[in-house]
Amino acid sequence: MTQNQQILLDNRPQGEAVESNFRLVQTDVPALQDGEVLVRHHYLSLDPYMRGRMNDSKSYAASQPLGEVMIGGTVGEVVESRNPKFAVGDQVVGMGGWQQYSVVDGNAPGLLRKVDTTHVPLSHYLGAVGMPGVTAYYGLVKIIAPKAGETVVVSAATGAVGSAFAALAKARGCRVVGIAGGPDKCRYATEELGFDVCIDYRENADVKAMARALKEACPDGIDGYFENVGGYILDAVLLRTNAFARVAVCGMIAGYDGAPLPLQNPALILINRLKIEGFIVSEHMEVWPDALKELGTLVGTGKLRPRETVAQGLAAAPAAFLGLLKGKNFGKQLVKLV
Amino acid sequence: MTQNQQILLDNRPQGEAVESNFRLVQTDVPALQDGEVLVRHHYLSLDPYMRGRMNDSKSYAASQPLGEVMIGGTVGEVVESRNPKFAVGDQVVGMGGWQQYSVVDGNAPGLLRKVDTTHVPLSHYLGAVGMPGVTAYYGLVKIIAPKAGETVVVSAATGAVGSAFAALAKARGCRVVGIAGGPDKCRYATEELGFDVCIDYRENADVKAMARALKEACPDGIDGYFENVGGYILDAVLLRTNAFARVAVCGMIAGYDGAPLPLQNPALILINRLKIEGFIVSEHMEVWPDALKELGTLVGTGKLRPRETVAQGLAAAPAAFLGLLKGKNFGKQLVKLV
Repeated sequence: MTQNQQILLDNRPQGEAVESNFRLVQTDVPALQDGEVLVRHHYLSLDPYMRGRMNDSKSYAASQPLGEVMIGGTVGEVVESRNPKFAVGDQVVGMGGWQQYSVVDGNAPGLLRKVDTTHVPLSHYLGAVGMPGVTAYYGLVKIIAPKAGETVVVSAATGAVGSAFAALAKARGCRVVGIAGGPDKCRYATEELGFDVCIDYRENADVKAMARALKEACPDGIDGYFENVGGYILDAVLLRTNAFARVAVCGMIAGYDGAPLPLQNPALILINRLKIEGFIVSEHMEVWPDALKELGTLVGTGKLRPRETVAQGLAAAPAAFLGLLKGKNFGKQLVKLV
Repeated sequence: MTQNQQILLDNRPQGEAVESNFRLVQTDVPALQDGEVLVRHHYLSLDPYMRGRMNDSKSYAASQPLGEVMIGGTVGEVVESRNPKFAVGDQVVGMGGWQQYSVVDGNAPGLLRKVDTTHVPLSHYLGAVGMPGVTAYYGLVKIIAPKAGETVVVSAATGAVGSAFAALAKARGCRVVGIAGGPDKCRYATEELGFDVCIDYRENADVKAMARALKEACPDGIDGYFENVGGYILDAVLLRTNAFARVAVCGMIAGYDGAPLPLQNPALILINRLKIEGFIVSEHMEVWPDALKELGTLVGTGKLRPRETVAQGLAAAPAAFLGLLKGKNFGKQLVKLV
C-alpha cells in the first residue's frame, strides 16, 4: 500500500503564523473508486492567500478546517487511473493540497486539468501559467485595463504575480514600475522581468520616502496599481495617482496577522476619482482560457522567464511558507515533492 | 446702471471655514456684449463641494480663485438679452455664482439651460432635478447598479442628494437605509422620503454602535453604499458589506478641514471583493438627460418631495453655507435672492 505524507493545519495562528501551526502525518493512500485518479504530486505551490485561510475569521475565502490537509495547488503525474479520461503518465494540475499524493474525482469539472509540457515546464503551471499568472491578468486586463503609454505599478514585483504582471503590461505598451525588497530583487526586476524601474521598499520605508521614489519613477503619475501588500505602500501610491486611476486589490499580506492597517487618506478616492476593486481570481473562471493562452505564449516565447524558489520535500513546506510571507523567496515559491 | 451684490472668496480657511473667509461687495452690472444674456438670480444653491474649492490644495476640482465670485449653481430669469436663443422672461439654470446677477455667454454650450416650471418648481432645478439629483443618479445607477431586492445605504440621507437617492432606489425595488443626524431628520426620512429605515448617527456615534445599528437595519447585509460623509460611518458600513458590494464616493465632508480621516480596515476591500469608486458628476455629462428626465418625473408625480431650507438674501449665504457643512440645514440648502 502506498504511503502518503500530509501536512495538516493543526491549530490557528495567534498573530504571526508559526511552524507549530502545522502537523506532518503519515497515512495510507486509499484504494481508488470507479472514476477516481491517483496523482503523485511533483510540486506544491505556496501562495500568500493560504495565510488568510488559516484564520477562523471571515477572510477572503473559506477558512481552512483544522485537522485537514492544507489547501494548495499542485502539479504532478497520474500514477493510477480508474477514469477513461486520464491515463497513467498524464501530467496534471489541480488543488491536491500539502501532500505527496491525492485521490481526485476525474469527472468533477475543473478539479484536474491535463497540461502540455512541450514548451512550458510543469512547475510553471503553478506560477506564470497558473493561478498567479491569471491573477495578474485579471487585475491588469479586467480592472486596470490600461491604455498604451499609461504607467502601472505593482508591489511584490518579483513574485509569481508581479512577474506575470510585468510581461502582460509591457505587451500592452505600458510603463511598468515595480516595488520589491532589496537590491537583488530590484535588479532582477529590471534586468530580467522587463520592469522599467523597480523601487526598493527597504530603502523607502515610510510613506514620504516611498511617495518621493514613486514621483521619480512615475513622472507622468500612476494610472493603475496592482496591490499585493497594503500598508504605507498603498498610501504612497494613492498620493501619486492620476485622475481616474484604477487600483486592483489582490492581497494585503501585511494585514493578515491582524495588525491594524488603516488607509491614511481615503479622501484621495474622491479627489482623484479612483476606482478601487478587490478580487479573487477563482471567482472569475471566465477569464482563465484567454489568460492561460497569453501567459503560455509569453513563457513559450521567452518573454516571461519566471524565477522559482524551490524547497525540497514536503516537510520543508511550513518553513518555506513562512519565508514567503516575509518575502524571503525569489520569484515563485514551490516545494518539490519527488 | 443695475447694481450687483457679490460674495468673493477673500481668504482661504485655516482648518474650519469661517464667515470672514468671504467678502460681500457691490459692483455695477456691465453692459451686455453681443450674444450675452443678463440673468437675475432667484436662488443660489449651496453645496458641500464648495468647501473643497475653498482650499488651495488639490481638491476634487479646481480651486476657487481668491478675490473672485464664489462658484455656485443658480436659477433665475433672463432680464436682458442680446442673444436670439434667450428671451426676457426665460427661466434658466446655470452656474451664476454667489451674486444677484450674472452676465452669461448664451452661445457657450452648457452654461445656461432653459427650464420648464409647469410641474417642477424653479428652485428644484438646483436640487432634486439638478446637480444633486444627477449626483444621486450617477452613484446609484452607474456605480452601485443595484438589483431589485438589494439593500442600499446613503449617508446625509435627508440632504438634496440623499432624498433623490431614496426615490431612485425605491423605484428600482431596493431596500433603502439612510443615515442622518437627529430624530427629526430620521423621521422625515422614513415618513416623507421613502426610506425603509433611517439611522441617527448622533445616537450611534462610533464605529461599533453604527455597525450594530446597520446590522439591525440591513439584515441581509449591504450591497451598495453612497458615501457623502466619510469617517467612522464608512468604516461601519464596510463591516456590513456583502461580497461584491459597490461604494460610490461622492463626498467626504468630515475630511475637508484637513483633519486626518483614515479608513480603518481597507483589507475589507479584498475580503468582501468591494468596488469603491469616487466620482464628480460634472465629469459625466452623458447621464444628465436620462437622469433629469427620471428625476423630473419623480418630482412631477409627487414620488420625490424634496424639502428645502431657504436663507434670505445674499448676505446670509456664508452663514447658511457654514451651517450646511455642520448639517444644520434640512434638505436642500438654498439662498433666496429676490
